[in-house]
Amino acid sequence: MTAYSATLAIDEELRARRRAGEKVLHLGFGEAGLPVPAAVAAELAEAAGRNGYGPVAGSPEARAAAAGFFARRGLATEPEQVLFAPGSKALLYALILALPGDVVLPRPSWVSYAAQAALAGKRTLGVPVPAEAGGVPDPDLLARALRDAPDAGMLVLTVPDNPTGTVARPDHVGAVCEVAGRHGLAIIADEIYGELVHSGARAPSPAEYLPERTVVTTGLSKSMALGGWRIGCARLPAGAWGERLHAELTGIASEIWSSLAAPMQAVAAHVLAEPPAIREHIAAARRLHGAVARAVHAEFTAAGVNCRPPEAGFYLYPDFEPLRPRLARQGIDTGAALAAALLNRHGVGVLPGEAFGDAPEALRVRVATSLLYGDTDARRWESLRSDSPAGLPWVAGSLAHLRDALTALRG
Amino acid sequence: MTAYSATLAIDEELRARRRAGEKVLHLGFGEAGLPVPAAVAAELAEAAGRNGYGPVAGSPEARAAAAGFFARRGLATEPEQVLFAPGSKALLYALILALPGDVVLPRPSWVSYAAQAALAGKRTLGVPVPAEAGGVPDPDLLARALRDAPDAGMLVLTVPDNPTGTVARPDHVGAVCEVAGRHGLAIIADEIYGELVHSGARAPSPAEYLPERTVVTTGLSKSMALGGWRIGCARLPAGAWGERLHAELTGIASEIWSSLAAPMQAVAAHVLAEPPAIREHIAAARRLHGAVARAVHAEFTAAGVNCRPPEAGFYLYPDFEPLRPRLARQGIDTGAALAAALLNRHGVGVLPGEAFGDAPEALRVRVATSLLYGDTDARRWESLRSDSPAGLPWVAGSLAHLRDALTALRG
Repeated sequence: MTAYSATLAIDEELRARRRAGEKVLHLGFGEAGLPVPAAVAAELAEAAGRNGYGPVAGSPEARAAAAGFFARRGLATEPEQVLFAPGSKALLYALILALPGDVVLPRPSWVSYAAQAALAGKRTLGVPVPAEAGGVPDPDLLARALRDAPDAGMLVLTVPDNPTGTVARPDHVGAVCEVAGRHGLAIIADEIYGELVHSGARAPSPAEYLPERTVVTTGLSKSMALGGWRIGCARLPAGAWGERLHAELTGIASEIWSSLAAPMQAVAAHVLAEPPAIREHIAAARRLHGAVARAVHAEFTAAGVNCRPPEAGFYLYPDFEPLRPRLARQGIDTGAALAAALLNRHGVGVLPGEAFGDAPEALRVRVATSLLYGDTDARRWESLRSDSPAGLPWVAGSLAHLRDALTALRG
Repeated sequence: MTAYSATLAIDEELRARRRAGEKVLHLGFGEAGLPVPAAVAAELAEAAGRNGYGPVAGSPEARAAAAGFFARRGLATEPEQVLFAPGSKALLYALILALPGDVVLPRPSWVSYAAQAALAGKRTLGVPVPAEAGGVPDPDLLARALRDAPDAGMLVLTVPDNPTGTVARPDHVGAVCEVAGRHGLAIIADEIYGELVHSGARAPSPAEYLPERTVVTTGLSKSMALGGWRIGCARLPAGAWGERLHAELTGIASEIWSSLAAPMQAVAAHVLAEPPAIREHIAAARRLHGAVARAVHAEFTAAGVNCRPPEAGFYLYPDFEPLRPRLARQGIDTGAALAAALLNRHGVGVLPGEAFGDAPEALRVRVATSLLYGDTDARRWESLRSDSPAGLPWVAGSLAHLRDALTALRG
């Protein structure tokens, strides 16, 4: 039985609780809760006449725009290396299906990699991430794990990372790519949060370190908050290996989803060309995500919880280990029990680390901060334009709710 | 290696040949070549603000509209039985992946069923269709085949059918469902052409005959010519078996594509509610598809080729067997050689029956007639409104091209 994606499931549950009148703080879901800019909505409307199937990999315009997007990030790209799909999730599944061998994952890592591997009939092997940042396994532990894993075929790296909200350092990415290359692995580089490094810096791409064997996936769900539009794209490496894999992926795409909806391809062509208004919009989103993630982080550390400082996206991965004795007295001794107590006793919805492949007994949860920007488009726009969004009443109110919950949880 | 879907591949090839200046008659691809009504385009534009992921199965509005759509066709349906996806193709894949056992297919049948089964690691078993109509195997041959196929788990039925453009009779569907039920098979009823029976009659649904084990898939790609918008939907049966399968499918959906794009769900909610303008548009499309398919059919029969009369959709499945001696003298002795000769010597693009699982030596090809309605939206609207579309210059010109090709091929 394929379990419903844990992140999508908690989103539906928390929304249902709210509809039923419960006061719930929604820290469970990585939906970038921001409105659609008018110019982007207009692109969709203008493309409504496009009802033909078109090429499976995407229109020439969309693929050229994506090639330009990658080239501006130091990855020279031909349009023929690009493949669009209804979400980067679909591309990740197709990659796991297409590439030979078992799947090596950072631990913790995003909920769907392991589920997709199971659907594709593949085994997974989790390798812990270091303390500094998530999304990339510890290189020494990776090398050791691969010695006993002759069937390993691919390594998934998430830079920037979900669930930890951190960005692996270049030397760390380089060291892991070196190990992967030595073992003949392919790398799937999930860069869906690539535009959301809070400092505005460029995250290191594995494609810089193992260029001929790294596939990059990205999309507009996070940077542009267009998760509900399902726009994903992949960059295959140049060269014979990449060409064969592109053909294989396009074949899989042609038999599962045919193509990304044509009006959505028009939107992608517009956004990935990065006109000034798009750059400014994403820069404002980046500032907002950073400010609110830092404010939430401060609540956790003030409560005595360990937590890596947020660097990108809108996630935190607090570790309640320092509170273990206090929590044990309340019957809380696993991440799942912790998440359940936070939700049922304190009205705070988060996901246990176990959903991300972490050890069940670890007192870690994944916290998403992107649904705090307001319940109306007017508030979301105000959050986006604010110099101190954590002080806006609806954000401050959520922070107070969290503070009270953590205080009560400490007992 | 997953081959690129044959229908999508020939579409890209024929369009590339045209761009290169070749005069090619495009009879290769089942894209319903009609424009988007203004009211439907407006629905998409109005839904541009919907950028949240939403429920995996679809919004309450879209699911309620789909439930009403099915109920008006005699299949009482609760919204909870419905699941939307980016195309019914994605749902067919998820079904083949989710249901246990091997896949029994009519022979010939649509190109993607067997390819999807291969992707899902399943075997397929083709059972010939009778002479009267395609999409449903001969019941006696099915019963015989199942005696030697203990691992068969599901049967795909296509009513109305692609590639034959015919509609199985109710007693035939009933007999096959009876055999399937006796063997404990699940039925996947692909009803994507259900709205396009030329007479306006209702095609028999397998869900009427094996209600507790039949899943119906449909979408807006054919009836509304919205193939490039990727809107598909499934109706799961009521009862425990259907509920479990719905949960399993939703789980798979949550890990591969998350949800149908929210603006597309809004379009689905509008269209499936069937306001009068939508009904009239589909009725006009149905008349056009019938008139042009009959005119193309007349060209094949005039050339001495056997062909079932078209009853639904926009396909013909001519059998050149009566011309075998003449074709043999030109070195044509397979369906693939016939399709190649038609394209390379006579500028007519069709697909060989082999792509649909038919015997390679059979001189059968699949002919799609839906791209003859004009190369501009103005011409397509004129075709749609015409009382005798086969007489419009662009349609008549294509018919003349086909006539000349068949005359030359006869030698």
